[in-house]
Amino acid sequence: MRVLVVHGPNLNLLGIREPDVYGSATLAGIDSSLRVVAEELGVELDSYQSNQEGEIVDRIQGAMGKVDAILINPAGLTHTSVTLRDALLATGIPFVEVHLSNIHAREEFRHRSLLADAAIGVICGFGPSSYTLGLRGLVACL
Amino acid sequence: MRVLVVHGPNLNLLGIREPDVYGSATLAGIDSSLRVVAEELGVELDSYQSNQEGEIVDRIQGAMGKVDAILINPAGLTHTSVTLRDALLATGIPFVEVHLSNIHAREEFRHRSLLADAAIGVICGFGPSSYTLGLRGLVACL
Amino acid sequence: MRVLVVHGPNLNLLGIREPDVYGSATLAGIDSSLRVVAEELGVELDSYQSNQEGEIVDRIQGAMGKVDAILINPAGLTHTSVTLRDALLATGIPFVEVHLSNIHAREEFRHRSLLADAAIGVICGFGPSSYTLGLRGLVACL
Amino acid sequence: MRVLVVHGPNLNLLGIREPDVYGSATLAGIDSSLRVVAEELGVELDSYQSNQEGEIVDRIQGAMGKVDAILINPAGLTHTSVTLRDALLATGIPFVEVHLSNIHAREEFRHRSLLADAAIGVICGFGPSSYTLGLRGLVACL
Amino acid sequence: MRVLVVHGPNLNLLGIREPDVYGSATLAGIDSSLRVVAEELGVELDSYQSNQEGEIVDRIQGAMGKVDAILINPAGLTHTSVTLRDALLATGIPFVEVHLSNIHAREEFRHRSLLADAAIGVICGFGPSSYTLGLRGLVACL
Amino acid sequence: MRVLVVHGPNLNLLGIREPDVYGSATLAGIDSSLRVVAEELGVELDSYQSNQEGEIVDRIQGAMGKVDAILINPAGLTHTSVTLRDALLATGIPFVEVHLSNIHAREEFRHRSLLADAAIGVICGFGPSSYTLGLRGLVACL
Amino acid sequence: MRVLVVHGPNLNLLGIREPDVYGSATLAGIDSSLRVVAEELGVELDSYQSNQEGEIVDRIQGAMGKVDAILINPAGLTHTSVTLRDALLATGIPFVEVHLSNIHAREEFRHRSLLADAAIGVICGFGPSSYTLGLRGLVACL
Amino acid sequence: MRVLVVHGPNLNLLGIREPDVYGSATLAGIDSSLRVVAEELGVELDSYQSNQEGEIVDRIQGAMGKVDAILINPAGLTHTSVTLRDALLATGIPFVEVHLSNIHAREEFRHRSLLADAAIGVICGFGPSSYTLGLRGLVACL
Amino acid sequence: MRVLVVHGPNLNLLGIREPDVYGSATLAGIDSSLRVVAEELGVELDSYQSNQEGEIVDRIQGAMGKVDAILINPAGLTHTSVTLRDALLATGIPFVEVHLSNIHAREEFRHRSLLADAAIGVICGFGPSSYTLGLRGLVACL
Amino acid sequence: MRVLVVHGPNLNLLGIREPDVYGSATLAGIDSSLRVVAEELGVELDSYQSNQEGEIVDRIQGAMGKVDAILINPAGLTHTSVTLRDALLATGIPFVEVHLSNIHAREEFRHRSLLADAAIGVICGFGPSSYTLGLRGLVACL
Amino acid sequence: MRVLVVHGPNLNLLGIREPDVYGSATLAGIDSSLRVVAEELGVELDSYQSNQEGEIVDRIQGAMGKVDAILINPAGLTHTSVTLRDALLATGIPFVEVHLSNIHAREEFRHRSLLADAAIGVICGFGPSSYTLGLRGLVACL
Amino acid sequence: MRVLVVHGPNLNLLGIREPDVYGSATLAGIDSSLRVVAEELGVELDSYQSNQEGEIVDRIQGAMGKVDAILINPAGLTHTSVTLRDALLATGIPFVEVHLSNIHAREEFRHRSLLADAAIGVICGFGPSSYTLGLRGLVACL
Repeated sequence: MRVLVVHGPNLNLLGIREPDVYGSATLAGIDSSLRVVAEELGVELDSYQSNQEGEIVDRIQGAMGKVDAILINPAGLTHTSVTLRDALLATGIPFVEVHLSNIHAREEFRHRSLLADAAIGVICGFGPSSYTLGLRGLVACL
Repeated sequence: MRVLVVHGPNLNLLGIREPDVYGSATLAGIDSSLRVVAEELGVELDSYQSNQEGEIVDRIQGAMGKVDAILINPAGLTHTSVTLRDALLATGIPFVEVHLSNIHAREEFRHRSLLADAAIGVICGFGPSSYTLGLRGLVACL
Repeated sequence: MRVLVVHGPNLNLLGIREPDVYGSATLAGIDSSLRVVAEELGVELDSYQSNQEGEIVDRIQGAMGKVDAILINPAGLTHTSVTLRDALLATGIPFVEVHLSNIHAREEFRHRSLLADAAIGVICGFGPSSYTLGLRGLVACL
Repeated sequence: MRVLVVHGPNLNLLGIREPDVYGSATLAGIDSSLRVVAEELGVELDSYQSNQEGEIVDRIQGAMGKVDAILINPAGLTHTSVTLRDALLATGIPFVEVHLSNIHAREEFRHRSLLADAAIGVICGFGPSSYTLGLRGLVACL
Repeated sequence: MRVLVVHGPNLNLLGIREPDVYGSATLAGIDSSLRVVAEELGVELDSYQSNQEGEIVDRIQGAMGKVDAILINPAGLTHTSVTLRDALLATGIPFVEVHLSNIHAREEFRHRSLLADAAIGVICGFGPSSYTLGLRGLVACL
Repeated sequence: MRVLVVHGPNLNLLGIREPDVYGSATLAGIDSSLRVVAEELGVELDSYQSNQEGEIVDRIQGAMGKVDAILINPAGLTHTSVTLRDALLATGIPFVEVHLSNIHAREEFRHRSLLADAAIGVICGFGPSSYTLGLRGLVACL
Repeated sequence: MRVLVVHGPNLNLLGIREPDVYGSATLAGIDSSLRVVAEELGVELDSYQSNQEGEIVDRIQGAMGKVDAILINPAGLTHTSVTLRDALLATGIPFVEVHLSNIHAREEFRHRSLLADAAIGVICGFGPSSYTLGLRGLVACL
Repeated sequence: MRVLVVHGPNLNLLGIREPDVYGSATLAGIDSSLRVVAEELGVELDSYQSNQEGEIVDRIQGAMGKVDAILINPAGLTHTSVTLRDALLATGIPFVEVHLSNIHAREEFRHRSLLADAAIGVICGFGPSSYTLGLRGLVACL
Repeated sequence: MRVLVVHGPNLNLLGIREPDVYGSATLAGIDSSLRVVAEELGVELDSYQSNQEGEIVDRIQGAMGKVDAILINPAGLTHTSVTLRDALLATGIPFVEVHLSNIHAREEFRHRSLLADAAIGVICGFGPSSYTLGLRGLVACL
Repeated sequence: MRVLVVHGPNLNLLGIREPDVYGSATLAGIDSSLRVVAEELGVELDSYQSNQEGEIVDRIQGAMGKVDAILINPAGLTHTSVTLRDALLATGIPFVEVHLSNIHAREEFRHRSLLADAAIGVICGFGPSSYTLGLRGLVACL
Repeated sequence: MRVLVVHGPNLNLLGIREPDVYGSATLAGIDSSLRVVAEELGVELDSYQSNQEGEIVDRIQGAMGKVDAILINPAGLTHTSVTLRDALLATGIPFVEVHLSNIHAREEFRHRSLLADAAIGVICGFGPSSYTLGLRGLVACL
Repeated sequence: MRVLVVHGPNLNLLGIREPDVYGSATLAGIDSSLRVVAEELGVELDSYQSNQEGEIVDRIQGAMGKVDAILINPAGLTHTSVTLRDALLATGIPFVEVHLSNIHAREEFRHRSLLADAAIGVICGFGPSSYTLGLRGLVACL
């Protein structure tokens, strides 16, 4: 089983960005935690981060036929990108949506996700563990 | 570490109830899957189901000082019970909210949770795995 | 054909409660009118009233496999109980929703029913006759 | 007791029109079922169908002093015609509103009726039986 | 100066219709009061009533080039007819909108007029005098 | 019959203020037109203008027992002053609300009046004639 | 292939009506442009205009079994007529919705169509060409 | 004069529950403060707490004919229970609604009460004193 | 302890103003009831009424350093005056908001207070007793 | 006449993407159908696709002075991109908006276009033919 | 060039009022900073503060023909005063709106300004510098 | 002090783009006006423009530790980009938001900014001077 991990805009700043909201973990740290769990579950991982909506869309399109599922933290695009939704639906690759913070406890505009209803499942609020839980969930549901 | 698992109204019907939405797992099946993970994580579990909002509130109040966290699937009360929210806040016991189905892909009135912003995190859509993921998340965040 | 009649909260006060809204009929009177029609239609009736949402849910769950349909006046729960909706959907028992008063002519918050779209049909405004009409409708549609 | 039955726009197509929504009954069939019940109840019936809001209004105005009540399925006018509401209020003839389908289970714009709060009662979802139930309800409440 | 007076649906019932809302004046009475004022102001009047939106539209279209202004009580069409609005705009005949009752003191759905912003002016609440005031206003503003 | 005419804030600027919206008439001009009609109708007029909500309230309170009705153009206070509404209701003096411009053809926030439902009637859009029509309406309805 | 062209209320005024919005084309002109394209496409055309919602409904009902598709400019009925929607759905005749003007650039209430989601496609803004484009679209999609 | 004091869900936790919101007073402390004031006012008190909506409804129904008024802190049910509203209206017992905290300074969903418009009066924000003020208010208004 | 009592616009009319809403008490009567309670509680009172928002603001500003608290019935300004809110916040004087009538049982626009969330507490519906209860509440909470 | 055809994000997947929604045509197929029509109409075409909002904006800016019109299917950007709207307005190049699917029959958030009111016209629902119709419409209106 | 500076209600308390929101600057301090910039720019200043909406309106009306522009901090009136808007529009004096605090970061009801769309420009959040920036902006744009 | 100036999408077209809205200034012109003021204030400037949201985010991230503040005109991204907001918050660089036009006088969707509440201050409507005022404001507040 092959899984593409997509980190949305600004997640490259993890560990720097609003530490009271997102904690001190770095993206590299998250990726290596994911690899530990992936190995346990027999999953092959590929990780990608970009600040560009269009490049993320290209990357998802390029994954068709090469991965079995996507684990995505869409970050700020969660609430604004119909384009990202369309890419996920168009490729037909099953995906899980994760968030580091509890988006329900933040600004009103973060409560609505344009992707969630098309996802297998959604996980938020567990910090870096949101990713590893998401990977476990993906494997359990495919 | 001791965790109280709370199953909200109608979850005793699992395996019977709308199988196309909730799958064929039973509550007993979910509880035994949880016990396997709990053992792995060194967690002591106590599981409770009720169709009565007030009894669930009593059970949560009674857990003060006896458990370290709550794993709750509030079912239909998710969207309607300020009383349940108050019980969780009043006891100050940290909790994780889980749902079997992806509530974002269902009726409009299921999109709003009265508990979510007060939870550590929220997980939905992974079927019975939502519970085991939730337990892992709880342990990771406490 | 067996039908469970469910009277929601405060309906035990009928005849006392806001007579200008609900008229002077009592619950016992309604039940005996229902029995007359039931006999005419060859229906076996069982009648139940409770002020507790959870007990009503238990009663509906307990009716699975024992009744062919439910005739329910959900009273105040009509507008607030996702739990009641879930119980009716989960058991899969067909039901008809009735109201004594014309809910469209009352407070704004009484105009929305959380059950109506899942019912066979809805009847309101005919006073105690709403029940006997509902029973006839049930029989006609099953 | 004399009752005018008013069938709103497009109901002349019954049996042809969206059979998965409205069933296979025809308007003639409904009228003859109504006559059976009318005879049982000692009611004199007059039935009218039109696709023209204004003609329906004329017909209702013309019924003043000649009928004791109206049984109306306003069809698409339910949600859009203040003129129809005004005609019913202006003539002061008591009326019952019926619908073949369960309007709460259809498009959002069908959930609001401009007539319902002025009716004796409202019945929906029982197919052709909505009419006979409505006639019984009318008789019971006058 | 020639003025077409248009009385909308149900106004033929004046004197019968909801007397606590509309008073006991009849349409004939209103028309003769209007003729008294018209004579005083040197205006030639033509009065028309219909319960049919389409016929009113035909009548307004037919008035192009034959009248200088329209005095209209659109009744229930006020709140629902884009077609009537289009007819008035398309013919380009200046018009005044009048109502017998104070529409701001009635049901919520009567507070919005689809014609008002295109009118010279709007008058409501003065009973039959709304018409004579409207005629005076028309003459003063043309 | 004695009538108090109240001109709300900024109406002292008439003739200067946004001539494309309000025309070139002055307040003095309006008052003398009103006096002509008042004489015709046998009405005793008193005219008052202020830019201060509180002073207008004082003036209305002071009119109790001294006038039979009020003719008011509340200007900008129309949409914002519960205090003015309370003064009119508290004194119990019947009033007519007038506006020079057609408020339905202006900014969205000018479409709602906090006074209108408590008025005898409302007139807008006829320029200075709105006042004389309002006075005629007042006399016709008292 | 036979196509019924339906022109809604007030379209008989084309060329007169608000020329800055609708241009100077007449209905006859549009129909003859349509006939040119129809001949090119091998389509048999029938054209109908009415200012009466009910007559349009009758005409559409009468077309069942006689035409293969409808090309409709519902004009003001677009935004208000559930009855027209019901007629189109009930007959099951595929249809295309066209508008001369760009309805998205006009009043807010013109932005919502009660027919659009049931149409094959929607075209607006191209003036008389909206019709010929609509006819081409119809033929391309049937 | 006999007064039933009803404490809603979770109020048994007072002194423990969110002390920064509700202070350190206990329910027993509140009840004894109430008894001091009751004695001063010649009122006979009965105090009741439950976490179950249905039991509170039963208790209120049981109070008919036995108490002259109810002093109620509905807690979380304030915003969600039509059933509680119905019980209070059905029994016809006059009541006062009190809250320890200032509900207007808390979450948006706490700003609306389903009971308030049916109460004699409402008091919030004075901590335990809300109860004694409420009792004084009850006595003053009966 | 010194308390400033502020009576908002139109409260000088008490006893005259809408007696079915506000009762027959006068402002002088309320002030002398307040003085009785003030003496019991050892409070020094100063009472002020104005119909002018700006003068009330001046009076509140002038009270800084001279009073310990404010008891205010903001009347119609409750729902419209950000300026009054700013004055109370700017001076930092703690205040209690009172209303004679139950504002939740009146017009929709009276349900929202622009001051309430900044007050110590809010009391409404007890007629003149709302003031004495408010004074007791103030003293209990300071 | 020169026309730039802009295909928005994910349209490169056509033929793969949600075939039940978009059909089996490919982008290359659409472009060659367009070229056939372009030749017929004497139009010079240039076609461009990108998944990047910013690149599309650059392309549109670069077209100033080089093309006479734009034919755009903005895909997911339709509902979210003020930037794209600004580019089209800033360059002043006339454009037509097309959609393959009927956006009115899809998710609620697809019903609003941020471009439509600035377009010459809008066409949706005709599959690949939406483009050729759009091109014809463009030519007819320039 | 002559500029009138208008300070709205409660700004006389600056330096005292909510220092965490508005800082410690006083109104006198702001005025003398303004005079320094005015001298640099060759502007003649007149400064005015009032807590009375009506007096501010009088002052603005009195400035017609005497000043070239107005620099206004409308404070709490920003969100509530149509009267102030009318005064500014009626006099036709160009104005700039300034706020000390960032109104977008405060209560929801402070996000809407009734003046902003009629201003040359709006500046907020720079503390006392908002005024000097506003003056510079005024001079740059006239 | 070092300041990064960020010009959002389409601002490279300044001088060409909708001159009646944005004036005839060019981006180069604005930058050189800014440099004059920067020199006066002892500020080191760096100016950047892009039509790509993602590149702007990269540029802002790259400015961490290298600039003391950002002066940003987010153009169309103002209303749609949570990603841009996140970048500004994540880097923690203080920023000022400026707009050439008065966004409150334009389309409804331009009234809400996703950045404004996180900015030091906001300036709009002064044309190119909005930038120089923003720079002065930045310097005054840091």
